[in-house]
Amino acid sequence: MCRWLAYTGTPILLDELLYKPKHSLIDQSLHSQLGATTTNGDGFGIGCYGEGDNPALYKSILPAWNDRNLHELAGHIRARLVFAHIRASSGTPVQQTNCHPFRHGKWLWMHNGSIARFQDVKRELMLAVDPSLYADIEGSTDTEVFFFLALTFGLENNPPAAVERAVGFIEAVSGKRAIKYPIQMTVATSDGQTVWVFRYSSVGRSQSLFYTTNMTTLRAQYPDNPIFHELSDETRLVVSEPLSDLAGIWKEVPESSYGVIDRGQDELKSFTPQQT
Amino acid sequence: MCRWLAYTGTPILLDELLYKPKHSLIDQSLHSQLGATTTNGDGFGIGCYGEGDNPALYKSILPAWNDRNLHELAGHIRARLVFAHIRASSGTPVQQTNCHPFRHGKWLWMHNGSIARFQDVKRELMLAVDPSLYADIEGSTDTEVFFFLALTFGLENNPPAAVERAVGFIEAVSGKRAIKYPIQMTVATSDGQTVWVFRYSSVGRSQSLFYTTNMTTLRAQYPDNPIFHELSDETRLVVSEPLSDLAGIWKEVPESSYGVIDRGQDELKSFTPQQT
Amino acid sequence: MCRWLAYTGTPILLDELLYKPKHSLIDQSLHSQLGATTTNGDGFGIGCYGEGDNPALYKSILPAWNDRNLHELAGHIRARLVFAHIRASSGTPVQQTNCHPFRHGKWLWMHNGSIARFQDVKRELMLAVDPSLYADIEGSTDTEVFFFLALTFGLENNPPAAVERAVGFIEAVSGKRAIKYPIQMTVATSDGQTVWVFRYSSVGRSQSLFYTTNMTTLRAQYPDNPIFHELSDETRLVVSEPLSDLAGIWKEVPESSYGVIDRGQDELKSFTPQQT
Amino acid sequence: MCRWLAYTGTPILLDELLYKPKHSLIDQSLHSQLGATTTNGDGFGIGCYGEGDNPALYKSILPAWNDRNLHELAGHIRARLVFAHIRASSGTPVQQTNCHPFRHGKWLWMHNGSIARFQDVKRELMLAVDPSLYADIEGSTDTEVFFFLALTFGLENNPPAAVERAVGFIEAVSGKRAIKYPIQMTVATSDGQTVWVFRYSSVGRSQSLFYTTNMTTLRAQYPDNPIFHELSDETRLVVSEPLSDLAGIWKEVPESSYGVIDRGQDELKSFTPQQT
Repeated sequence: MCRWLAYTGTPILLDELLYKPKHSLIDQSLHSQLGATTTNGDGFGIGCYGEGDNPALYKSILPAWNDRNLHELAGHIRARLVFAHIRASSGTPVQQTNCHPFRHGKWLWMHNGSIARFQDVKRELMLAVDPSLYADIEGSTDTEVFFFLALTFGLENNPPAAVERAVGFIEAVSGKRAIKYPIQMTVATSDGQTVWVFRYSSVGRSQSLFYTTNMTTLRAQYPDNPIFHELSDETRLVVSEPLSDLAGIWKEVPESSYGVIDRGQDELKSFTPQQT
Repeated sequence: MCRWLAYTGTPILLDELLYKPKHSLIDQSLHSQLGATTTNGDGFGIGCYGEGDNPALYKSILPAWNDRNLHELAGHIRARLVFAHIRASSGTPVQQTNCHPFRHGKWLWMHNGSIARFQDVKRELMLAVDPSLYADIEGSTDTEVFFFLALTFGLENNPPAAVERAVGFIEAVSGKRAIKYPIQMTVATSDGQTVWVFRYSSVGRSQSLFYTTNMTTLRAQYPDNPIFHELSDETRLVVSEPLSDLAGIWKEVPESSYGVIDRGQDELKSFTPQQT
Repeated sequence: MCRWLAYTGTPILLDELLYKPKHSLIDQSLHSQLGATTTNGDGFGIGCYGEGDNPALYKSILPAWNDRNLHELAGHIRARLVFAHIRASSGTPVQQTNCHPFRHGKWLWMHNGSIARFQDVKRELMLAVDPSLYADIEGSTDTEVFFFLALTFGLENNPPAAVERAVGFIEAVSGKRAIKYPIQMTVATSDGQTVWVFRYSSVGRSQSLFYTTNMTTLRAQYPDNPIFHELSDETRLVVSEPLSDLAGIWKEVPESSYGVIDRGQDELKSFTPQQT
Repeated sequence: MCRWLAYTGTPILLDELLYKPKHSLIDQSLHSQLGATTTNGDGFGIGCYGEGDNPALYKSILPAWNDRNLHELAGHIRARLVFAHIRASSGTPVQQTNCHPFRHGKWLWMHNGSIARFQDVKRELMLAVDPSLYADIEGSTDTEVFFFLALTFGLENNPPAAVERAVGFIEAVSGKRAIKYPIQMTVATSDGQTVWVFRYSSVGRSQSLFYTTNMTTLRAQYPDNPIFHELSDETRLVVSEPLSDLAGIWKEVPESSYGVIDRGQDELKSFTPQQT
């Protein structure tokens, strides 16, 4: 299992997102509290939208807590849309091509969870990936195959529908092999403008997922906390695990649902895998 | 392109094989003379048969010339059958799962050369891999797919026939896409007992490959060189590029041929790809 | 803080030492129970005596739990005297030259603990190192300086006396700066024949240290456990933290004491820092 | 030996500096033409002034030509003052703390060359470093000690004088040991505003160093080359080795001299080591 964070809003120094919070993502790499594993030390990755349409990636096989370059870059890079992911491998090798987020053109994708008995279903899932996309798969994780299935099912046109079809397909393929609970997932994806986040698991007890509430409310609630006054109304943060215990700041994404965040609007909807 | 070395015979300290020769493999990682590239700095790997049936692997993404662990291990590990490979990537990522030699059970496999336009034929080649072997492919190189095709075509029973079929299959798949020269290769493979080496290219101008001549002859020729007296009659060395300019020591493996080395016997035969 | 293990006795496959025990050192890299930190993921090192007089080192900046080369080597290397160390950095960079064990000629040295406010006393400690040894210091840890102080004070002739003088010197230098508790340490050192282990801290509450009891006793106590019958009477294991909860197998090294293990003989003595 | 590049002027995408030139620094990491070594594959480092007063560093032990993060970052980071360095180690370990540029507060420092028989003079040079700076030395290279000597001799107040005194001191210390040619150097240093570059060697045959000529002249000379029209008059580039063979663009920094570049002004002066 892993931990991740998705941020969109006022351009922010990565340091503020990754290191400064009390229970920051970097801290979670050593001491996760809600994750299936307490240590997420099997590499990490950061994706940022900035210069150009396509996001930049920084990936490392070191634990996030002792990567000096990350600390350096965090103090000097400011971005309006950031994905950050710390990995706890469920078996596939620790190498940069297996670090999230994954990228395809302007799209980013990251995942906490796993496809059950992935090695048994990998070939059939890979076969379903659009042949024109096949050669772009670089690593060996379940997450990347899941991403490419979503791309195959139309992620670039309708992300929620594409993810519902990808999950439905994975459940169907796994079902044929009598795999009881095929998938466990919280997923974030973005085209650089909108962010979609998903929480679902075949077993119905999904990994945790939280998002920050409306900034206007927060400013009224905490008139003395400068951070809420520096960030625009449109700013949102979605996390596997809260970065602080500030009352009222974190709302849980419900089971079997997804959220859409776009220019300060956010909405939650029901998520239902579709078998085609 | 890459450089490699295969050794079988008297158990030898890796240091003698990898560092001590005048134009050693480690030296070739910085200054190759016959290779398509002069620098082979994109990782390396060593496979040794010793304890147990299956060989041990040591792989690194650092250039061989500055990997301190390799230098340490070379001074302390003695083996009777060694594969060593230094990589110059033709595009796929520099990661341990892409370093040669590749292993399957007791088998090792390494390769200098490439499959032309690999990204275009990868999916079709992967589909031809036996489904029971599919999930064992860990990296993203052409060489590993080639290895698994050879395994699919019976490498464990009849290596020369399996490699001829694998190459024939690659040429057929590439031919359908009008790829003119589908494969360039020198390959070594072993089950821990016998070593097979192959030299072939679709274009008919293959990368170089050399082997040492009979030890008895060498002892007579160089009565004062201690190295030839310490090594048994059965010892053989096959290399991409000679490790010294000692006259008479290196014989070239001819174009489109393969060699079989087993307990001091070696023979060269003609290699002809088979399309099935 | 860190965790370590020192083994001497019947040549053993590293796998048996490092991976197979229930609460193995590799397991402790993720889940230490007695250490000051639960995760020891800031690199590791292994030193083994084998071929030649001087030990071989294998060091890595990856967490021990996901270093594939270590796993490979552990399955193929057998040694009669092994030092293994997993690191939790107290601030100095994670790099191979900071991984324990440190080596000087045939000597190895590893340490769990730290020199308090090391950056404040580093220059004075470095100045006390014998000028002929100075240039051999490669990394930036407190432990390596401590080792070179011990060498300066005669480690190669009388290890307990040299360590007592080194600790006395560190306490004196720190005392001048009003550092209350200058050193916390469990240390192991060896010349390839004898192993010395030390447990001491200025505060008088030292990190834990355990050793295995006499093999003859253990065989009588556990007549059905094969492991005690395969290992010779001379075999001893010293660890920061027990590898299992087998009753009677682990004895604690007392506060302010040191042990000497040589050819199956072991004795515990009192340790008292000496100021010169 | 190494290769380096210093840029100051119009904020530029790192990609334009590091990858796009015909004979770029990344290309030089594999194929240097003027360097003492053709391969500079022992790590690299980039320093950029941007957010805040102090520069950000990115360092890696991989060869620059296959570091994916560098390629990513280069496409997304724009900076007005950049130091880039590719390393060919003269013996000290390949680790991030040995990669140039080195940093102290807002100062950067990088070096091509070496201090002769550094291990023999290291202790005496280290002793001369101001004790208040001593603990900030992180790595083990001659270059970092040279930097800290320059800081000790007043780099932050008068860089040319401080470097002249540091070099004079090194020559004096080496002279006592009958080291014939104590130092070989091209050095760049900056406080984020001004850039100083030095070319000197005790033997009087220094490594090469070039700088770009006045932009106004270049625009007149190459009216059709867009690059000269996008960059401001104040832009300057200093390199170990020209990035192209464009006639008239590169001027050589003479032997035993230094240059000062500040807001479009540049001047060359004579460099004479001072013994104090």
